[in-house]
Amino acid sequence: MGELILYDYWRSSAAWRVRLALAAKGLAASHVPISLIAAEQRSPDHLARNPQGLVPVLADGTLLLSQSLAIIEYLEETHPDPPLLPADPAGRALVRSAALIIAADVHPLGNLRVLRWLREELGQDEAAVTAWLHQWMGTGLAALEAFATSHGGRYVYGDRLSLADLCLVPQLYNARRFGLPIADLPRLLAAEAAVFALPWAAGTRPVEPESVK
Amino acid sequence: MGELILYDYWRSSAAWRVRLALAAKGLAASHVPISLIAAEQRSPDHLARNPQGLVPVLADGTLLLSQSLAIIEYLEETHPDPPLLPADPAGRALVRSAALIIAADVHPLGNLRVLRWLREELGQDEAAVTAWLHQWMGTGLAALEAFATSHGGRYVYGDRLSLADLCLVPQLYNARRFGLPIADLPRLLAAEAAVFALPWAAGTRPVEPESVK
Repeated sequence: MGELILYDYWRSSAAWRVRLALAAKGLAASHVPISLIAAEQRSPDHLARNPQGLVPVLADGTLLLSQSLAIIEYLEETHPDPPLLPADPAGRALVRSAALIIAADVHPLGNLRVLRWLREELGQDEAAVTAWLHQWMGTGLAALEAFATSHGGRYVYGDRLSLADLCLVPQLYNARRFGLPIADLPRLLAAEAAVFALPWAAGTRPVEPESVK
Repeated sequence: MGELILYDYWRSSAAWRVRLALAAKGLAASHVPISLIAAEQRSPDHLARNPQGLVPVLADGTLLLSQSLAIIEYLEETHPDPPLLPADPAGRALVRSAALIIAADVHPLGNLRVLRWLREELGQDEAAVTAWLHQWMGTGLAALEAFATSHGGRYVYGDRLSLADLCLVPQLYNARRFGLPIADLPRLLAAEAAVFALPWAAGTRPVEPESVK
């Protein structure tokens, strides 16, 4: 492996998943901020890294990878210890399905480009945007709570940290940010607390850059 | 493994991905239709299979799996031959990232429940719904075309069928269904043609049930 460089945005949920994976595995990476507010993700430099114009991107030497779940699976395959997926195929599939509840069915509906479309193209006011976010976050997190009730222990799946927890933590941050009631998600809140009881977790939290304060 | 049962809906892109994976690997599965139009995915029986109330669900004996990419990774791990992911971690990550362009950043924005919200809660007309679909399908497919231009060969990634092609095929069906111009996606159209040149591919196509004609 070459030098790891993570191109990220401080408030990107997907980038936070990758920061959590790197920290869980004890991997050091340089961070290069890409400001979504300043549209830097549409710059020629960033589009050359990722034609999708999104963050995060992980560079491993000359290899450029996008899509947070693909990046984390890559880290899992190249740095298997400690694992973020169970050893058995059934457990691995269940963890991946839990992660995708958030990564596919919640997060893409609430990212910045989609919210901008709701406001600017569809003329929706903030109440409608919030209702939209609550609908998809609420249904997704309720499904994940049901998953954790069936399959969880200390964490979302069993008693070991997994990819599912890495997707949960940034989504709960978003839920609070947008005022979604989450008191009815006790299994998920317990898993979140278990993550932040890990010594490396706090250091992955989003930190607003000085320049945009 | 037990008996495989796929709970699907004929027009679900995600279910079609799984049908393609099963067919590629020569696996037989029973099919149980779940009508999204009749809201059968919200029935107690189906919610017991998947609290998210979505299709597809794959049952393998008593194991119930949701989320198409998690299901396909499970089939890949339990039936590795023929593979739907490359052998090397970099290639696997690239294929997964291509698949997620569609599975995370395009498809969830165009599924039935989201289009219903646009129409019923946000009062959008069909022109606005179509513009919405074109926006996300167009940007996602353009990014996948760029990926295929960099990394593709006969298929989206290299010269072997992969998970990326399984995500592409149903998305191109949707693009045509909703009138998105796709002539500017030559690499993707060539990969789609390569898939349908495979003897088992045509049998996976969506077939409208008699009862809803």
